[in-house]
Amino acid sequence: MPNIKLVLEYNGSGFHGWQIQPGLRTIQSEVHSALETVLRTKIKHVQASGRTDEGVHAKAQVVNFYVDETPDLIRLKRSVSSLLKGEVSVVGVEIVDDSFHSLRDSKQKFYRYSIYHADVPPVLRHGQVWLVNADLDIAKMQRAAKQLEGEHDFESFRCSGCTAKSTIKTIHSSEIISEPPYLYYEVKGSGFLKQMVRVIVGTLVMIGKGAEVTIPEILDAKDRKEAGPTAPPYGLCLEKVTY
Amino acid sequence: MPNIKLVLEYNGSGFHGWQIQPGLRTIQSEVHSALETVLRTKIKHVQASGRTDEGVHAKAQVVNFYVDETPDLIRLKRSVSSLLKGEVSVVGVEIVDDSFHSLRDSKQKFYRYSIYHADVPPVLRHGQVWLVNADLDIAKMQRAAKQLEGEHDFESFRCSGCTAKSTIKTIHSSEIISEPPYLYYEVKGSGFLKQMVRVIVGTLVMIGKGAEVTIPEILDAKDRKEAGPTAPPYGLCLEKVTY
Repeated sequence: MPNIKLVLEYNGSGFHGWQIQPGLRTIQSEVHSALETVLRTKIKHVQASGRTDEGVHAKAQVVNFYVDETPDLIRLKRSVSSLLKGEVSVVGVEIVDDSFHSLRDSKQKFYRYSIYHADVPPVLRHGQVWLVNADLDIAKMQRAAKQLEGEHDFESFRCSGCTAKSTIKTIHSSEIISEPPYLYYEVKGSGFLKQMVRVIVGTLVMIGKGAEVTIPEILDAKDRKEAGPTAPPYGLCLEKVTY
Repeated sequence: MPNIKLVLEYNGSGFHGWQIQPGLRTIQSEVHSALETVLRTKIKHVQASGRTDEGVHAKAQVVNFYVDETPDLIRLKRSVSSLLKGEVSVVGVEIVDDSFHSLRDSKQKFYRYSIYHADVPPVLRHGQVWLVNADLDIAKMQRAAKQLEGEHDFESFRCSGCTAKSTIKTIHSSEIISEPPYLYYEVKGSGFLKQMVRVIVGTLVMIGKGAEVTIPEILDAKDRKEAGPTAPPYGLCLEKVTY
């Protein structure tokens, strides 16, 4: 049974996140039915490298699914993108080894969070940036971001709906990049808890605004109340998944 | 009479370009009337660093205008952005020397053209990229882009509506940057003819598709017919003006 890998770009604005939920329009459900329409066959399951929350975007989400017969890949790519025009595009397609599993085999995920640091509304990246209208100590935020690198218990950065058994995660790189009026948080790691990147961003902004607490203190506390508020989803984008 | 300098970010999609034209919605006319509304006074002229064509975007267009009395700058910035919400934002404001002229004093302009090199529609940057669905020899485009650097007669790259007396321009840097599925053309120069950047992009794509003609040959010909088609406006953005 051929195993097909797709790379998807999507705008999360019009969806209730990745995962199929009864009665709600999700990216997984739309992609699933577009694939069935184009391939004229039933598909069991479209597996993603991970769920993205409601409103979160992706430049390169990786998914895989099995089909009975090898389809025309170029036609598949173009037809699915055409059906989901402007909201989801298939930017890559290939047949992969039977054993490939987009979630289990992922080695690293790269997320980027975009902040529009201004006192006026964003224009060119409207709907894809978080407007933060406050004085920020950017150098302090940059130092704090660095302190998240390495293996830590991210209990303080887990949201209430998170059901993960372990909260130990490894962050490979974590940095704040300043390109006024934009401020980017770029993070690479082996995996993340639900909403963890958004809680990190909310915490870094809280620190940038002058909070006295430090990242090591927040990590040590193992208490969600020590971290900052959860940043809104629309500033977040899954940039790349590495295998 | 205070001379006010503004830095504007705008989405060109909903406008007939920068310049005021009777009966048409232009960026200059909207900014002009928003300024008059907020300042409750008549303004003679809002001068820009240069016109942008219909559909072209700006991250940092620079303009200046004179007022009778020094206004509250923060209020001005926020109120004008609020009136033009989502289409134009004032990202910078300052009082400058009486003699400052945003057009005459500009030393360098930086434009970026975004190509979405794919066979499916763009999603996250919809309306801000040119979809090019063709095989492109990117290394060849990169070499061709470099050959535009320096002082040249850009007669072959002037559009029919261009009324400039001289077609001699100096390009400080010119390069193609590949970040699949995006391809960027970044150019910095002391000034550009009307639609010149878009003709350059159309020409680089023509060369990337396999045209045998070279940049030195096109420059030497001094004939618009030797260059490629004009790339669409919506992929172009004025990134920065240096004084």
